[in-house]
Amino acid sequence: MKRIYQFGEGNKDMKELLGGKGANLQEMFNLGVEVPAFFTITTEACKEYYSAKDKDALIRKVMEEAEPYLKQVEEKMGKSFGSKDKPLLVSVRSGAAVSMPGMMNTILNIGLCDSNLKSFAKSFSGERFALDGYRRLLQMFGDTVFDAKEVEQGFKDAMEEVKAKLGKDVKDTDLGIKELKELVERFKQVYKDNGLSEVLKECFENNDSREASINQLRHAIDAVFKSSQGHRALVYKKQEGLPADMGTAVNVQAMVFGNTGDDSATGVLFTRNNATGEKGDGKRILYGDWLLNAQGEDVVAGIRNTMPIEELGKAMPEIYAELRKTVFMLEKHYKDMQDIEFTVEEGKLWMLQTRMGKRSSLAKLVCAVDMVKEGLIDEREAVRRFGPEDMEVLMHPVFDPKSEKKQLSSGSAAGPGEVSGLVAFTPEKAVELGKQGKDVILVRPETSPEDVHGMLASKGIYTRTGGLTSHAAIVGKQFNKAVIVGDSSLQIDEKKGLAMIGGKEFKEGQDYISISGTTGKVFEGRVASIESEIERVAKGELDPLKSKVYSYFQDMMGYAKAIKKLGVRANADTGSDSRIARLFGAEGIGLLRTEHTMFNEPEQIMAMREMILAADTNSREKALMAIEPLQMKNFVEVFKAMSGLPVTIRLLDPPLDEFLPNTSERIREAAEYICRKYGGEKAEVESQIRRRLSDLKEANPMMGFRGNRLSVVYPEIARMQARSIFEAMYKAKLAGAEPVAEIMAPVTICEGEIRHTGEIVEKVRKEMEKKFGKLPILFGTMIETPRAALDAGKIAQSVDFFSFGTNDLTQLTDGMDRNSAGVYLNEYVGRGWLGGEPFVTIDKTGPGKLVEMAVDEGKKTNPKLKLGVCGEHGADPESIYFFEKAGMDYVSCGAFKVPIAILAAAHIELKD
Amino acid sequence: MKRIYQFGEGNKDMKELLGGKGANLQEMFNLGVEVPAFFTITTEACKEYYSAKDKDALIRKVMEEAEPYLKQVEEKMGKSFGSKDKPLLVSVRSGAAVSMPGMMNTILNIGLCDSNLKSFAKSFSGERFALDGYRRLLQMFGDTVFDAKEVEQGFKDAMEEVKAKLGKDVKDTDLGIKELKELVERFKQVYKDNGLSEVLKECFENNDSREASINQLRHAIDAVFKSSQGHRALVYKKQEGLPADMGTAVNVQAMVFGNTGDDSATGVLFTRNNATGEKGDGKRILYGDWLLNAQGEDVVAGIRNTMPIEELGKAMPEIYAELRKTVFMLEKHYKDMQDIEFTVEEGKLWMLQTRMGKRSSLAKLVCAVDMVKEGLIDEREAVRRFGPEDMEVLMHPVFDPKSEKKQLSSGSAAGPGEVSGLVAFTPEKAVELGKQGKDVILVRPETSPEDVHGMLASKGIYTRTGGLTSHAAIVGKQFNKAVIVGDSSLQIDEKKGLAMIGGKEFKEGQDYISISGTTGKVFEGRVASIESEIERVAKGELDPLKSKVYSYFQDMMGYAKAIKKLGVRANADTGSDSRIARLFGAEGIGLLRTEHTMFNEPEQIMAMREMILAADTNSREKALMAIEPLQMKNFVEVFKAMSGLPVTIRLLDPPLDEFLPNTSERIREAAEYICRKYGGEKAEVESQIRRRLSDLKEANPMMGFRGNRLSVVYPEIARMQARSIFEAMYKAKLAGAEPVAEIMAPVTICEGEIRHTGEIVEKVRKEMEKKFGKLPILFGTMIETPRAALDAGKIAQSVDFFSFGTNDLTQLTDGMDRNSAGVYLNEYVGRGWLGGEPFVTIDKTGPGKLVEMAVDEGKKTNPKLKLGVCGEHGADPESIYFFEKAGMDYVSCGAFKVPIAILAAAHIELKD
Repeated sequence: MKRIYQFGEGNKDMKELLGGKGANLQEMFNLGVEVPAFFTITTEACKEYYSAKDKDALIRKVMEEAEPYLKQVEEKMGKSFGSKDKPLLVSVRSGAAVSMPGMMNTILNIGLCDSNLKSFAKSFSGERFALDGYRRLLQMFGDTVFDAKEVEQGFKDAMEEVKAKLGKDVKDTDLGIKELKELVERFKQVYKDNGLSEVLKECFENNDSREASINQLRHAIDAVFKSSQGHRALVYKKQEGLPADMGTAVNVQAMVFGNTGDDSATGVLFTRNNATGEKGDGKRILYGDWLLNAQGEDVVAGIRNTMPIEELGKAMPEIYAELRKTVFMLEKHYKDMQDIEFTVEEGKLWMLQTRMGKRSSLAKLVCAVDMVKEGLIDEREAVRRFGPEDMEVLMHPVFDPKSEKKQLSSGSAAGPGEVSGLVAFTPEKAVELGKQGKDVILVRPETSPEDVHGMLASKGIYTRTGGLTSHAAIVGKQFNKAVIVGDSSLQIDEKKGLAMIGGKEFKEGQDYISISGTTGKVFEGRVASIESEIERVAKGELDPLKSKVYSYFQDMMGYAKAIKKLGVRANADTGSDSRIARLFGAEGIGLLRTEHTMFNEPEQIMAMREMILAADTNSREKALMAIEPLQMKNFVEVFKAMSGLPVTIRLLDPPLDEFLPNTSERIREAAEYICRKYGGEKAEVESQIRRRLSDLKEANPMMGFRGNRLSVVYPEIARMQARSIFEAMYKAKLAGAEPVAEIMAPVTICEGEIRHTGEIVEKVRKEMEKKFGKLPILFGTMIETPRAALDAGKIAQSVDFFSFGTNDLTQLTDGMDRNSAGVYLNEYVGRGWLGGEPFVTIDKTGPGKLVEMAVDEGKKTNPKLKLGVCGEHGADPESIYFFEKAGMDYVSCGAFKVPIAILAAAHIELKD
Repeated sequence: MKRIYQFGEGNKDMKELLGGKGANLQEMFNLGVEVPAFFTITTEACKEYYSAKDKDALIRKVMEEAEPYLKQVEEKMGKSFGSKDKPLLVSVRSGAAVSMPGMMNTILNIGLCDSNLKSFAKSFSGERFALDGYRRLLQMFGDTVFDAKEVEQGFKDAMEEVKAKLGKDVKDTDLGIKELKELVERFKQVYKDNGLSEVLKECFENNDSREASINQLRHAIDAVFKSSQGHRALVYKKQEGLPADMGTAVNVQAMVFGNTGDDSATGVLFTRNNATGEKGDGKRILYGDWLLNAQGEDVVAGIRNTMPIEELGKAMPEIYAELRKTVFMLEKHYKDMQDIEFTVEEGKLWMLQTRMGKRSSLAKLVCAVDMVKEGLIDEREAVRRFGPEDMEVLMHPVFDPKSEKKQLSSGSAAGPGEVSGLVAFTPEKAVELGKQGKDVILVRPETSPEDVHGMLASKGIYTRTGGLTSHAAIVGKQFNKAVIVGDSSLQIDEKKGLAMIGGKEFKEGQDYISISGTTGKVFEGRVASIESEIERVAKGELDPLKSKVYSYFQDMMGYAKAIKKLGVRANADTGSDSRIARLFGAEGIGLLRTEHTMFNEPEQIMAMREMILAADTNSREKALMAIEPLQMKNFVEVFKAMSGLPVTIRLLDPPLDEFLPNTSERIREAAEYICRKYGGEKAEVESQIRRRLSDLKEANPMMGFRGNRLSVVYPEIARMQARSIFEAMYKAKLAGAEPVAEIMAPVTICEGEIRHTGEIVEKVRKEMEKKFGKLPILFGTMIETPRAALDAGKIAQSVDFFSFGTNDLTQLTDGMDRNSAGVYLNEYVGRGWLGGEPFVTIDKTGPGKLVEMAVDEGKKTNPKLKLGVCGEHGADPESIYFFEKAGMDYVSCGAFKVPIAILAAAHIELKD
């Protein structure tokens, strides 16, 4: 068995045997990069060690075998290990096949001992340098080899005591020769006090520095092997699902120093900008910092003021040229942005490490797209490097990472984005402040449809109650607002215009807060945010042609669309929503809620109220006539915006009482409107409204008189809606658009009712075709009640498509109103009883099972059945994966979630 | 092929061939009973007729074959068919294998014609008799043979015109010889006018009366065959699922007459009392009526005053003795009460018909039990003869059938029973009137838990809104009140103390109405009712030992229990409920709602309110301490009442806000109570209550913070309930009872929460066992959310039993609140979209499928799993059948429904 590999004997694909670090060193060496010479003891040798009875004998055998390899390192570095004259020092580092951050054991400066310390100082960099190196060796060696708290504490105490003599706030670097000498002595005392002197006896007492050094090396290797089976390592392995007997390789590498004089230096760099993804242009071709005559850790620690990397070009032009050549070669070789450490020792450049550079979401996007264009990677790889979670970040403003923040409180992160604004406690106040050009955060106990204008006028919404799918969360998210819900510590006194947040008072219209809908945290005052270019393009505030980010985004969407199989549509209710959706890559509208424009336009809501109050079919139809052209106008806008793509229009869904006025004032307003229009006694109309309100009042409206049930009792409503859709199709065609309509009925439980509603639509279609020519549509149903899922085989025979309303399906399957579930649902989710948050990720045991059953049964009786999902789950990557596996043709989600869904759908294909 | 069967050639088992009537005649003949001689043309011959091309030829062939049989009849009767001297007349009647009521074609008096009419009159019973017989023949013959509206109308017009000459209100019997003669002539004219004279040409013109009679017979047989394939018959067959080519047999039977003089008579009788089921004792041994010198139809028509059957004993002692012997022989032979027709013709007794006697539900019970005791039938047969629907009738008062009723309106029949009372519009008024000893009907828009005292004080409940499972229906039924719900025409003006019912005004406390919760009809004024003895026994108003009906009921329950396999338990909340349940045969309590006593006892509800208002766990536990002994006391009563039988106790189910006061006045009361008990500012406590109310308020409470969810957030509630149960077990044991407890948690969706609640109960059990010794229980869960059904395999691992709450399961599966569903559900049910009323009979496609899935999955992971159903479906026979097939161990239903469920369960075994 070959237990040891010399530099040049391996490559990057030998991670299993040589560990990640060892394989990477091999690869750099093979590429001709100057790395300090090294050899690697294999993971196989480590496993052998685990099972060996006489571990000491095995280590001695390894040391025997290591001798020729050590010789090669000495030759290569031109130094001699353990010699008194200019001795070679080595590091010993563990390195498993799988990276185990924080588990790595490192011992530097092996090869220093009492007997060669002086000559080392003389031959290299002076006494202070040598003493500092020696005390580090003693400390690291002690910590690793003995792995005992007493030892560790002993070193720390000694350090503190020595520092304390110099005064307060003394840093390691403040220690002079005198102090370091004392420290070395004290460290030796720690060894003695713990009865461990024997181990480094050679080092402290033997005058043969070679023998002493070999001894150090042997103990170090032994310690690394041992520590990879220690308590901490085993816990980590178990936690990460790694095999307990996974061995580690041990790298023994020559030390180089960047602090030996003015011909030495050290630095770190990225091959591209890790914040923006930019590639170096003429001026700035590398991104990093360096220091003259310094150690690597000095650059990172921020103790000394570093210099930008290009300054190296002036100080050491040849070294700099070599460095540039090397790092770009490495980037090209690894096909990714590199994070590199280097050291210049006495005028010679050594590369210490190269690895994938960590970067921001924006940098991920830019790097990936640029590298495709450079021919470095293909589109699949580009998509692989840019996840749905990165997309989410790019869609919203984020706090400037440089700004200071003082946290006040926290709630559930319900709509991403990080924004600041004056607090407003009523929608009216929010609108008022908004008109004054102020940024506003709407702070409410909860929100309802009546608050929508205030929500629109605000940058963010922050509520006391409600869960992740409450009105505030759903509607706020739809409008792409930052939203925090369910902060039960929030107290609002609307009358006094005061709120208590985190124990502090905030005055309406006067005090600022900042909220992160991404993390759920609430901060005091204004925290500066960086806007999202993509969001600004979508809102029409920025010309897409002028946005570089948007163009990168477009490229990435193109790659993702080419990979994904699942369709992605948007939930959008208006022409402007639809335009945004299309800009974001939506391949159709999966859910147009016809009632939303009714709520938002005063004229429509008044006509709806009139319709509901009507005493007979005739007056009902008259009132509907007023709504028809308004609905139609909206549909035309949507058809135009989505020309050539399918638009799924849902017939009226909510219980009628949602349309009726719900306060005395609004009842008065409604009565006035009706009297103005038709005459009549105001008092009588008012009491008529109140009677109708009490008739329509339901104890559980979610399980009430809605959806298809309305079409069964009041078929004239569905007729009106169908008419307005077909008329809109005709008008859109005249305007040159290509309308593709899919009409959908909600709240279905059985085949009879959906056939009934389908027949209403079909009859209208045939009538309208006589006037307008061909008006082909698909007709389908929501599957959002458990019964519909259970009876899907029969229902499928009367429809062209199913659209799964997984929000309501979850609520009914669990008997759980998401708006009020917060009180207990947090407990359920926290204890893992439901395997996740069921209103965020589809619950596979509950509604998920019903979805699968419905798909199976539906396809059996209607193999052409089209399948989609609307509702919040359509934007959740884990749910999207489930839906694709379940056989969906598409998912539909809020316009701002479309890019996320597209990426998630593409990642499914990459995963499989 | 033998097409004709003579008397004596068949028996009662030959219905397929001879039809029901023919087979029955055969049987009587075989028993030696004197029946007028007859022969039967088979159903096979009829089928042959259907497919014959030359039908006329076939009929002629049949007539040829019939000749010897006719001769036998003539010989037997000592008369000659078609002769001029004392001719034999015959009837021709259809008679299929399956009875087709109203489809039967009958032609009497065949054998009379112009040429023998006079001699018939002379030889038999005079001219009027002969003419009346003849005109009947002509009419029946014409109607049957021609089956044409014009003909039928022609006969009717002729009759009216002839009667009109005699004056107003003339009856058939008022017609004299002159009028009958005219009628015969006019009937002949009808034949002529319709071009039909040819058929009866022989009869009117031929002097050969034999030939004419044979002709009549041939046409009559032909007509009966033909009419069994006529439009009316085919519609009937299709409707009843009978094959269209099912033939009919034709019976040709000698006529006998009870109106030939004072040695003739006719009568009908039952062998037992068809209203009470009583057997004849010394005084009254037969139940029926007779008339001297009369025709059978005169007895039934009520034209003449009939005499009680025993009078026949005085008038014709020998005949009477023979009759008694014959009918009891027939009863014994058929092993059932017989409904018999007889005629005495010139001193000779003829039996015309015997069949099973139709009887009241009470008579069914009494006859069946008596016959078991007489050894006539076995227990299985007794149960077969007494259905769940009969049981239902016996449990409630019914309107006296003799009383006159004027219907006002109608609603949904929601709780059986027929009662009268003064209208009351508030629970307070109902209680007030009740205290005055008045019968009350509580008339309300709808009812809520706050109305319970008023409901208890009333005989019946009548509401404007709500469906079959609304509060009024469920709670009213539980208290065994007559209930009508959902009469949307009902208008109540509480302030004025007025209601409009069916367009009439009713004053509170002054006007009476009567309601039938069995039919849903509402009547004006007081309609006399007959009380239910069984109900009175259950209510403790009647000593069971003194009630004969109750003792019959007990016997029947005994038979049914021995047959049935499915267990039947009761839903009962208190000791007195439990005693009733046990009296009614319940084999345990399947559902004890712990919150019901909380609602009904002021002390408990106050303590509950205190608990809910408590700011922390500590004060919550203090308030719970006050509830614990009250709950315990109730449990002890129940355990004692149900000693030895299992009692399923459900932990707290409803959302907490149901316990809080819901009006300003009640909030004030609650605040006063709390201040009295603990001191404090009333205003502050009031505002505290209001705050808590608004915190707990849910938009959809049915899908809210209830059941297990309460145990998760407030485990102290479940702990208190568990403590009180175990303490009650101990106390009940001390009192000599044998408590068997099954504790059940409601509103489960996943395994984690039920394990959590189970652990709370188990921990309390172990603690209590230290004090009290062994306290074994079963722990289980309701399955009432779709998710619980879908996850049943996992949930079953943490419980001993499932109890299906099919009410909530239906509501959630359909997303349909039963309390408000009336608006549209009627449409769905009416159009057959759901295959039935889903809240009455379990919907097999929806919740039914979930029940089956849950049973399968649950049994897989826990083969010992006990399975039950609580909820209204447990009392519905069709649902019970489904539940037994699904594998349930028991159903549980309201105490008053227990006997019905027991019978339904027994009938399942009889059916299979």
